[in-house]
Amino acid sequence: MSKVVKTLKSAIQLCGLEDGMTISFHHNLRSGDRAAAQILAAIASLGIKDITIAPTSLLPGHDALIPYIEDGTITRIQTSGVTPQIGRLLQSRALLKQPVEMRTHGSRAAALESGEIWVNVAFVAASQADKYGGCNGCAGVSAFGSIGYSMVDVRYAEKVIVVTDQLLDEPVHPASIEQSSVNFVVPVESIGDPAGIATASLSPSRNPVDSLIADMTAQLIIHSGCLYDGCRMQTGAGKISLAVASKLSRYMEQEQITADFAMGGVTGAMVEMLEKGQIRALYDVQSFDGRAVRSVLDNDRHMEVSATAYASPSAKGGAIVDQLDFTILGATEIDTGFNVNVITDSNGCLISGTGGHGDSADGAQLTIITAPLYRMKYPTVTDRVSAICTPGRCVDAFVCEKGIAVNTEIEHNRELVFRLRDAGLPVRTIQDMKVEAERFTGKLPPLRQGGRTVAKVLWRDGTVLDEIGAYPE
Amino acid sequence: MSKVVKTLKSAIQLCGLEDGMTISFHHNLRSGDRAAAQILAAIASLGIKDITIAPTSLLPGHDALIPYIEDGTITRIQTSGVTPQIGRLLQSRALLKQPVEMRTHGSRAAALESGEIWVNVAFVAASQADKYGGCNGCAGVSAFGSIGYSMVDVRYAEKVIVVTDQLLDEPVHPASIEQSSVNFVVPVESIGDPAGIATASLSPSRNPVDSLIADMTAQLIIHSGCLYDGCRMQTGAGKISLAVASKLSRYMEQEQITADFAMGGVTGAMVEMLEKGQIRALYDVQSFDGRAVRSVLDNDRHMEVSATAYASPSAKGGAIVDQLDFTILGATEIDTGFNVNVITDSNGCLISGTGGHGDSADGAQLTIITAPLYRMKYPTVTDRVSAICTPGRCVDAFVCEKGIAVNTEIEHNRELVFRLRDAGLPVRTIQDMKVEAERFTGKLPPLRQGGRTVAKVLWRDGTVLDEIGAYPE
Repeated sequence: MSKVVKTLKSAIQLCGLEDGMTISFHHNLRSGDRAAAQILAAIASLGIKDITIAPTSLLPGHDALIPYIEDGTITRIQTSGVTPQIGRLLQSRALLKQPVEMRTHGSRAAALESGEIWVNVAFVAASQADKYGGCNGCAGVSAFGSIGYSMVDVRYAEKVIVVTDQLLDEPVHPASIEQSSVNFVVPVESIGDPAGIATASLSPSRNPVDSLIADMTAQLIIHSGCLYDGCRMQTGAGKISLAVASKLSRYMEQEQITADFAMGGVTGAMVEMLEKGQIRALYDVQSFDGRAVRSVLDNDRHMEVSATAYASPSAKGGAIVDQLDFTILGATEIDTGFNVNVITDSNGCLISGTGGHGDSADGAQLTIITAPLYRMKYPTVTDRVSAICTPGRCVDAFVCEKGIAVNTEIEHNRELVFRLRDAGLPVRTIQDMKVEAERFTGKLPPLRQGGRTVAKVLWRDGTVLDEIGAYPE
Repeated sequence: MSKVVKTLKSAIQLCGLEDGMTISFHHNLRSGDRAAAQILAAIASLGIKDITIAPTSLLPGHDALIPYIEDGTITRIQTSGVTPQIGRLLQSRALLKQPVEMRTHGSRAAALESGEIWVNVAFVAASQADKYGGCNGCAGVSAFGSIGYSMVDVRYAEKVIVVTDQLLDEPVHPASIEQSSVNFVVPVESIGDPAGIATASLSPSRNPVDSLIADMTAQLIIHSGCLYDGCRMQTGAGKISLAVASKLSRYMEQEQITADFAMGGVTGAMVEMLEKGQIRALYDVQSFDGRAVRSVLDNDRHMEVSATAYASPSAKGGAIVDQLDFTILGATEIDTGFNVNVITDSNGCLISGTGGHGDSADGAQLTIITAPLYRMKYPTVTDRVSAICTPGRCVDAFVCEKGIAVNTEIEHNRELVFRLRDAGLPVRTIQDMKVEAERFTGKLPPLRQGGRTVAKVLWRDGTVLDEIGAYPE
């Protein structure tokens, strides 16, 4: 009756994992993840090779997988992002059989549903599980909050193994993942360190440039007409985003505006707004800090949602991202066509992933990209981004310390320009900003990449948006 | 952004429902259901014909659909059960294109997953919904508790329409069904009367025959070794079952035994055991009375589960029924091979459905059938039941007022016989019981049914267990 298996190796054998098959795991523990390394160690120790990993993303906690890429245990990667270290490895050495396929969180969910990604064994790191397979991520010593990404994997994977460091003797509640979605439960010493979730500083920026950007972004939102009683928002977890959220919160308090919901990666700042009654509900696919983690467990209005509900283009009647009035997103680069890059740095080095960037940019009524005009010697605004992860047709405005550039190629944004000008906000063209950025940084030399394609960036509909090359030889 | 559509007719048109397609709906509101009649009225008013209905079951609330069977709007039925009125109609007149396909709750879920049942439009009566499509059945004026059956339909149906009599302006919580599973939301005056859920008397029987049966059943469970700390139980909602549960509860209190979980249709009696700490968790796919309905909303340990989790043979690592130590089920008839009938009366008239009977009988370690030896002029124990809904190989014991018959064709039950004899319980053969029953009732005349097959009873694996014929002409 019990689904408990003593070791990962035995569970993997019971699932019949073989050379050439595909496994998946979630990235909710981010830099603190210790589950994936144990999973790959078990697979490698069984002599299984040529595995495709299809995680929801790869974060620094997954750098421990590098030896398994080097030794041929892993030969294909389907993910939403990679880490700088993994990026460096893949761009410098031809280790994989195929380019990395990088999908947004939403299109990954759709690809699971359509069978384009076919997972033989899904591993779910859970902070609490029972012997029947029911589990969650929001309770227990290693609680990391929403387990929303894995909610999709357990539905479509052939076999599911839950890995937990808190195996309860009684049925877990909440059973965020139902027991009927789970074949085996493996107890381990530790699935990871939840402190590794919030490695990025999760407090509003106090840097004056960031503050200026946050100010203008808040004004932009207020004057756009998108902030109203009943609106739907995603504010993000970056330092600028958090500063914007804090300004919006004050404005909403003043004007007695309550948002219908906020969503996305959820931070303590959003939890505070929920608790103050400024947001009626939170939809959470990934909890970004300790306060958010606790809130998932404690607050009925803070709801875990699957990656399908969050962002899938195949969601019935649209995903939650498609309901958004506005979203605030970041960029490593943006070009004069408003195409956005968050995957590589200005040198074309793979450093991160698309995540839900493209999903919420595509879904939201008003998509705002915020970033400083330049960083060190690198301009943010360029003629052509090193890699497109979100096409300009989904981006409405870019805000940097020099002002607001509105994408007037999108027709309804022409009215936005008038509104912002009326409000006395510094509207400028993106071309102007590019010129100004280059005044500080000089023009970037053209991108040099090797002929080999290292990664393909896929759009929400599965088409290839861009390709990322190897380091030049 | 809103999924709200003013009328059922418009929503049905938006879903593209056409002649020959399949719709589904749940039966959680049982005798109180008013949603299905409104749905069919809208379909008929659009002139759509030749519809397959694939509800989770049909209960007296659905007798209002009879005109739509008569007029050719409905020409095929896939269900777990029918009402006596619908049964009478179908056995007396050849109105459908094919025999009714009767599946257990679990195999219905599996058939949705495999595509054997293909639903074009699933209708979900919800007691609360928001404009994004999120909904539940456990809050609101028409709250009926768990919405677990529909959790499966919304996953596999092409389109989903939520019908609600409480459309909230803010996001609903809990969102037992996620917004991404829903295309449209239609507000209606009333989805039904929750008072109609508990039409069967839901208090323990005080009839002395039933009491005697309940006593022996409780003793049987206690001496079987299946009632231990950490056990998993389903006690059912019948009058005898409730009397057994009350006796078991007292014994568990005395002996300080706590069950790991109870499941199934959930009654107030089980909620009381949960609240007293005698059961660690309740898994609920159908709430059977007001107390259970309230508990779904109020008690974190009272968890809504999908029909897949509850009973599907395709559930990963087994469904909840497969974890059961014991289950107490009823019968209209049981034969000397321990085959059980709950679908027809002794005259072969369709009166009910299989529900989860076969699922839990198949899944549980110890399956006990309880019933009086005879009812009026009809023996319960016969040579051959009028219709097999659960095969004898899944039944371990039958308890009536004359004693306990153990199915010793199942090898491990031979030990059970010794245990029960040791405990001084009246173990008898099922053949003896049949003879005794016939002493009171006389032998039943052989079943006379017309040549036409009216219904096929399918087993958990999709094979045909039995066929039910028309009334003789």
